[in-house]
Amino acid sequence: MKLSGVIPPVCTPRGADGALDRASLSRLCHHLVDDGVSGLFVGGSSGETALLDASTRLAALDVAVEAAAGRVPVLYGVIETGTARVLEAARPAAAHGAAAIVATVPFYVAPHPAEILAHFEALAGGELPVVAYDIPSATHVRLEPAVSIALAREGYAIGLKDSSGDLAGMRSVVNAVRDLPFSVLTGSETMADIALDLGADGIVPGLGNVDPAGYVRLYSAARAGDRVAAAAEQARLTKLFGIVDVADRTRIGFTAGALGAFKEALAYQGWIDSPSMWPPLGALDDVEKKAVRELVAQASGRGGGLG
Amino acid sequence: MKLSGVIPPVCTPRGADGALDRASLSRLCHHLVDDGVSGLFVGGSSGETALLDASTRLAALDVAVEAAAGRVPVLYGVIETGTARVLEAARPAAAHGAAAIVATVPFYVAPHPAEILAHFEALAGGELPVVAYDIPSATHVRLEPAVSIALAREGYAIGLKDSSGDLAGMRSVVNAVRDLPFSVLTGSETMADIALDLGADGIVPGLGNVDPAGYVRLYSAARAGDRVAAAAEQARLTKLFGIVDVADRTRIGFTAGALGAFKEALAYQGWIDSPSMWPPLGALDDVEKKAVRELVAQASGRGGGLG
Amino acid sequence: MKLSGVIPPVCTPRGADGALDRASLSRLCHHLVDDGVSGLFVGGSSGETALLDASTRLAALDVAVEAAAGRVPVLYGVIETGTARVLEAARPAAAHGAAAIVATVPFYVAPHPAEILAHFEALAGGELPVVAYDIPSATHVRLEPAVSIALAREGYAIGLKDSSGDLAGMRSVVNAVRDLPFSVLTGSETMADIALDLGADGIVPGLGNVDPAGYVRLYSAARAGDRVAAAAEQARLTKLFGIVDVADRTRIGFTAGALGAFKEALAYQGWIDSPSMWPPLGALDDVEKKAVRELVAQASGRGGGLG
Amino acid sequence: MKLSGVIPPVCTPRGADGALDRASLSRLCHHLVDDGVSGLFVGGSSGETALLDASTRLAALDVAVEAAAGRVPVLYGVIETGTARVLEAARPAAAHGAAAIVATVPFYVAPHPAEILAHFEALAGGELPVVAYDIPSATHVRLEPAVSIALAREGYAIGLKDSSGDLAGMRSVVNAVRDLPFSVLTGSETMADIALDLGADGIVPGLGNVDPAGYVRLYSAARAGDRVAAAAEQARLTKLFGIVDVADRTRIGFTAGALGAFKEALAYQGWIDSPSMWPPLGALDDVEKKAVRELVAQASGRGGGLG
Repeated sequence: MKLSGVIPPVCTPRGADGALDRASLSRLCHHLVDDGVSGLFVGGSSGETALLDASTRLAALDVAVEAAAGRVPVLYGVIETGTARVLEAARPAAAHGAAAIVATVPFYVAPHPAEILAHFEALAGGELPVVAYDIPSATHVRLEPAVSIALAREGYAIGLKDSSGDLAGMRSVVNAVRDLPFSVLTGSETMADIALDLGADGIVPGLGNVDPAGYVRLYSAARAGDRVAAAAEQARLTKLFGIVDVADRTRIGFTAGALGAFKEALAYQGWIDSPSMWPPLGALDDVEKKAVRELVAQASGRGGGLG
Repeated sequence: MKLSGVIPPVCTPRGADGALDRASLSRLCHHLVDDGVSGLFVGGSSGETALLDASTRLAALDVAVEAAAGRVPVLYGVIETGTARVLEAARPAAAHGAAAIVATVPFYVAPHPAEILAHFEALAGGELPVVAYDIPSATHVRLEPAVSIALAREGYAIGLKDSSGDLAGMRSVVNAVRDLPFSVLTGSETMADIALDLGADGIVPGLGNVDPAGYVRLYSAARAGDRVAAAAEQARLTKLFGIVDVADRTRIGFTAGALGAFKEALAYQGWIDSPSMWPPLGALDDVEKKAVRELVAQASGRGGGLG
Repeated sequence: MKLSGVIPPVCTPRGADGALDRASLSRLCHHLVDDGVSGLFVGGSSGETALLDASTRLAALDVAVEAAAGRVPVLYGVIETGTARVLEAARPAAAHGAAAIVATVPFYVAPHPAEILAHFEALAGGELPVVAYDIPSATHVRLEPAVSIALAREGYAIGLKDSSGDLAGMRSVVNAVRDLPFSVLTGSETMADIALDLGADGIVPGLGNVDPAGYVRLYSAARAGDRVAAAAEQARLTKLFGIVDVADRTRIGFTAGALGAFKEALAYQGWIDSPSMWPPLGALDDVEKKAVRELVAQASGRGGGLG
Repeated sequence: MKLSGVIPPVCTPRGADGALDRASLSRLCHHLVDDGVSGLFVGGSSGETALLDASTRLAALDVAVEAAAGRVPVLYGVIETGTARVLEAARPAAAHGAAAIVATVPFYVAPHPAEILAHFEALAGGELPVVAYDIPSATHVRLEPAVSIALAREGYAIGLKDSSGDLAGMRSVVNAVRDLPFSVLTGSETMADIALDLGADGIVPGLGNVDPAGYVRLYSAARAGDRVAAAAEQARLTKLFGIVDVADRTRIGFTAGALGAFKEALAYQGWIDSPSMWPPLGALDDVEKKAVRELVAQASGRGGGLG
């Protein structure tokens, strides 16, 4: 399975009852697929998966699989601290329709690169193929490019989701795995055109929830070799990405501010019913919500706008 | 429930079959209680809990509860990234005999202090009382002293396990909660006498697996006001604590090196069958194991030694 | 030379003309010595030395030496990134009357412990004895306890100023250098009594500018073995230390907030003319200044108060 | 003054007498200019300037200015912790022939962005124009893109040397300063082609000491719009950059390993007499030197090689 295109890490709507809002999630997933994404990534950081219990996580997978209806693959994130926990969380994924799991390095336990390699070797024994997820801002452990390359060579993973912000490292991986069955996906919202230019196979932008059509246009332009069009679309999306910075960080955390902005934008567009966050994340206040809506409105107005 | 005394974070022995070695764990727990500890903490960092699946974690709890046989309370660590996950993991704990759960701040998601407070407020709604666990070396988020104090005042937690290394912060908590039903436990192996002197109620040392009698003597001396004896015992234990540094960190991670040393010491003493680590942690090599055994032998020889 | 007692890192008053306010500095130094300090440390972090040019740094030394008038030694901080720079900055210090220099590890250049040892070996070839200064919050490089111990054993330094916050590390140094001509000084404002209890020879608290008599009382009580009195004085000083947290950190940096509070307290007490900071540090605003003055007034009122 | 092209941060050769090896430095500077660089940057991190005293730093400037002989401008790095220190170190630079100074944010003192802006505002009052230098790996303080943009808008700096590794941030600066007299230079060795593609005006690669002709070819290709040729040259240089990783980091620090590799490569090529490092940095051992020479030999062999 070669992953490519735009694969948004899907937000997880929360209902007024504090449970998964299945209707909203279904609406969002349908919208994303309709707008041309190549896959859905359920259970990622943007999906607040670290804050969801097991049944909610699987329920979100079910909704996404049903909405995708075979049109695109659904990846399933298993954000767990260690090997046995990842294997346990991944176990039902195949039966629930996931095409692959996405797993980080072990965290909390400060692993050595050799231990990280052993971790993915063990995960490779599971039912589903594995995408390795490098997100040191969350795990505080880097999945070093050299280890990613080893994962590709050993066949322990089918791809890398690179949310490290280290484009030089991503480039070294891309160059090393060129002839291997290994996809490199960038998690960058603001350097997606460059990452594709450097050889990334696809993009997994949290902001892709808010503007999937924009990222699909960007991807298509990049693939067509139209770098000017890709950069122009990127510039528009980068401006829209300013929504993640509107929250007052003396009041709520960065995660709450960024993901809250995505959800507010989705609620404003009508794709989900409520921007409610999963506990214990705080909510944007009214001034911040207004700022998000204005940035979304501006992005829509210029050149085609949001899908 | 006021927690006090020595409450070791129990190691989790792994059998040759890759599963929990119940017999070894039972033997270890009996030994710890026989040597005078005041509680058992199952599911802590020293127990490699971040690397265990749910059934193994509960099985370890069962063994400890059975071994404790009501003589001492058993605390149950629920190391999970977010609120709903902690609540889910904690749910069966009461029925399995835990006296309280021990939970960290949310991690992976970079929470704001207000979100950390909301997290523990939600946990307080669970069946069991909660001990808040500050271990920023693992979570990369500090449970600030001001938040711990708020937990005590609001009644969201019955205690703090402080593995921050920040004795000044611990002191500020101790002073602020003096009249509240809130226990402060230090996780420090090398400053336990000082922490007790500053007003800590108890100690939760990983090295307490290896030398419970030593920590019990230290605790008793400190409580009796014999600071010279407490310091002398501390000095002996601090030297023994050198076992956590014998491993070559260019080969295995710090966690593997430290916890591997505890397990090697336990195997050497005969309390557990094997020093096997839970995947993906690496093992000490023979030279390192020998160095651990020598430090253990030295510590035993001098002044009463290991229990 | 064995260093002991209270050795405040002296603030550096700035005049309305933007130059060193010699009169204020002289007044402050006289006051500190009159109140019983055992030495003056000019050129430390609290003296904003990283923000002063060479002639201002030496002028401050001159003023302190003249004010000390041989009653107490004057230490001279040489905060420089590398070996040759430290040697260059230290060269005039002896002729200007300094008794020793205080030097950090190399910073900016990410040194290895072996390189840190070589650094201090080279400094030992200078005219004045060297106190090693461990302040990782500023240098972002730790002077590891093992290296401090090597400095003592090799005779490369006569002491350690420990501003690491790591009391366990300080304890290991104290224990290892017991029979060597090596002084251990803590930079902690809030754990000074404990550090002395653990065997530190002296204390170098920035807050000692504001309340020298309090720290002298604390030191005397600790030396007399009156731990209760020392702890009570410490508690009063810890409360006063709250002045470093009044500034709004979304507006000025932590250094500006903390050192600005010291200067505001000194100006309020009349020891210096102005709380002016050295560029580019920002100033407290009026509300923050008022909060500082209130905490100072409270500390004075209770039990003898500020000297 | 618009800065552009390749401006290597020149290494500082050390003689057998422990002083600046003027002849080697002159030879190196002549070689660099002969190979087509657009400027020389003396006093940068690659020049070990944090480890040089003032007279050595100025002597290096003198040698470079004489070697440049007006053919290219010479930039002068003033790596100092605070505003007054930068102004003091910069004062003689104009008379010694520097065209501009290069200054970092204040470090050691944890400045707020507003304080960083004030720092550069003060520096703008000096005789020479200022290039702001963002190198958080050394200063541990980020020069945020928003602050760089403010520097450009306020006219406090004529350019940015970006060694942050954050290409997304650099892109935001480039886009914001497009119509301002402000040059953006990347310090990246391995993403130079991409940085130029994104709109950077020039490159300041430490590896440019070792292979100036390669970077000049890369720059020319990028400017001519030949992205394939630029990428091919980049790939060759990235492979050569592997020399910074040959050193054993359990023995010497990263700075010593990387800059020692540059110097070994220069000595091997005959441009400088000795790879001697400035104290207290450690030296490569013979095995490591051999590994450096082999990588240099490989890079020379393929496609034109080192200039």
